[in-house]
Amino acid sequence: MIAGEPLDLDEKKQQAADWFRQLRDDICQRFEALEEAAGESQLADSPPGRFERKPWQRPEGGGGEMGLMRGRVFEKVGVNISVVHGQFSEEFRKSIRGADEDGRFWAGGISLVAHPHNPFVPTAHMNTRFIATTKSWFGGGGDLTPMLPDTEAAEAFHAALKTCCDGHDPAYYPKFKEWCDSYFFLNHRQEPRGSGGIFYDNLETGDWQADFAFTRDVGCCFRDSYCQIVAERMNQPWGEAERHAQLVQRGRYVEFNLLQDRGTLFGLKTGGNIEAILMSLPPEVRWP
Amino acid sequence: MIAGEPLDLDEKKQQAADWFRQLRDDICQRFEALEEAAGESQLADSPPGRFERKPWQRPEGGGGEMGLMRGRVFEKVGVNISVVHGQFSEEFRKSIRGADEDGRFWAGGISLVAHPHNPFVPTAHMNTRFIATTKSWFGGGGDLTPMLPDTEAAEAFHAALKTCCDGHDPAYYPKFKEWCDSYFFLNHRQEPRGSGGIFYDNLETGDWQADFAFTRDVGCCFRDSYCQIVAERMNQPWGEAERHAQLVQRGRYVEFNLLQDRGTLFGLKTGGNIEAILMSLPPEVRWP
Repeated sequence: MIAGEPLDLDEKKQQAADWFRQLRDDICQRFEALEEAAGESQLADSPPGRFERKPWQRPEGGGGEMGLMRGRVFEKVGVNISVVHGQFSEEFRKSIRGADEDGRFWAGGISLVAHPHNPFVPTAHMNTRFIATTKSWFGGGGDLTPMLPDTEAAEAFHAALKTCCDGHDPAYYPKFKEWCDSYFFLNHRQEPRGSGGIFYDNLETGDWQADFAFTRDVGCCFRDSYCQIVAERMNQPWGEAERHAQLVQRGRYVEFNLLQDRGTLFGLKTGGNIEAILMSLPPEVRWP
Repeated sequence: MIAGEPLDLDEKKQQAADWFRQLRDDICQRFEALEEAAGESQLADSPPGRFERKPWQRPEGGGGEMGLMRGRVFEKVGVNISVVHGQFSEEFRKSIRGADEDGRFWAGGISLVAHPHNPFVPTAHMNTRFIATTKSWFGGGGDLTPMLPDTEAAEAFHAALKTCCDGHDPAYYPKFKEWCDSYFFLNHRQEPRGSGGIFYDNLETGDWQADFAFTRDVGCCFRDSYCQIVAERMNQPWGEAERHAQLVQRGRYVEFNLLQDRGTLFGLKTGGNIEAILMSLPPEVRWP
């Protein structure tokens, strides 16, 4: 336990970690159900995919479980959970909330990146986490990246997130949407990575139960909204031109993740699990 | 002209720029000849490629010419030349030789990245440049990245570079080989990007003609050695397993260029020509 925190911090960590695992199980089940359901399309010739899980240990403390599915609806989708703890190096302490004088930390979370096979099905990303240093807070979000223009999907996704946010605080959606837009922006191309969503960090309102409930809702909202978007599009026929456009668009995803994404760069620099970190990269990409 | 330099600096710039252009013309011609020659293989169904050239202007001063060929031997190869000049921002001055007190600079160079279609033909990179601040120097090098293990190609390439270097200074090859090995190393995977080659920078021995002659020889040596390696392998049959291994290996190339390559990151951060800078990225890649 870290000095200065209320006595039940360990219980909070446990509840958060349990939730991330439950959400992981739930999402994997829903994604596998979509794999089963996609029988009446170009995808019918391939067998439905199943997640393969692979635990990993972090030498410095903790570890996680990767879940990877190479399916017919989801050409590649990773759903990872992790609970890690340790001590931030001097180099990182100043840039991390509450770690300036005491480098000990605990971090639990879930992260997901889905690269569907069908170019008409948007790529999606979701991540939520609970972090404890001398302070403790929630962070995360979800965002959608259509490979071909898809206003309808973007609107449905944002509407679902707005409803989710508004149920907790009417200030959340506008603030977290803007945060997402400014974060997922490719500086060198001066273009957004996708259609956005929400992104939040340092969420510590003083009411832990409320913050935790919001984080749970973000996960559920993402799951339900994205599964519906996938289900509505996965059987739509596509051709080589759409596939090509998709593979080129995926290049932007790679550029963002390797050039800018703080989580990716932080993980690679601090000796994180390479396989888990780079699971976000698309299965096939083109820079023609 | 920059204060403090000998009177003939402008002539040096002109001679260097003329050479980079001549080498570019020469290499493009040789690569197009290889495209023509590759008739008796899996590649025979595709037409031989031709370079397309595209000039670009840099708003701050100077510009360049991109050369891109999407062929049958070379799935994608970029050969770019540029001559740019201007003023380094305060931010960069301290990290650039001779620019600390006077931020004016001139830089001319050629850069090449070749991604062959046939997985048995190694990927290659070459770049040489002449840079002038209050100091002036040459830099560059060439390196080979086999997509499938190819000791023979690596040995032939290194032998040619050693002969080239030894003709100028016996200390060059060991020093520049090691520089290359340490530069083209993927930190997060703890693995070399390829089979190496040579890399040099800040070459200013006091004998400009000798330094220029060395830089010309590096370009010619790369051209001759690489063209021979390509010619010997381009008609070799391959299958889906080799193609898959190639596409995965190309992923490492992308990771290096976007995570570590100083030239790429510097160019993207300083508003360089995105299209020219990212021409190095492979046409098709897999992260399975």
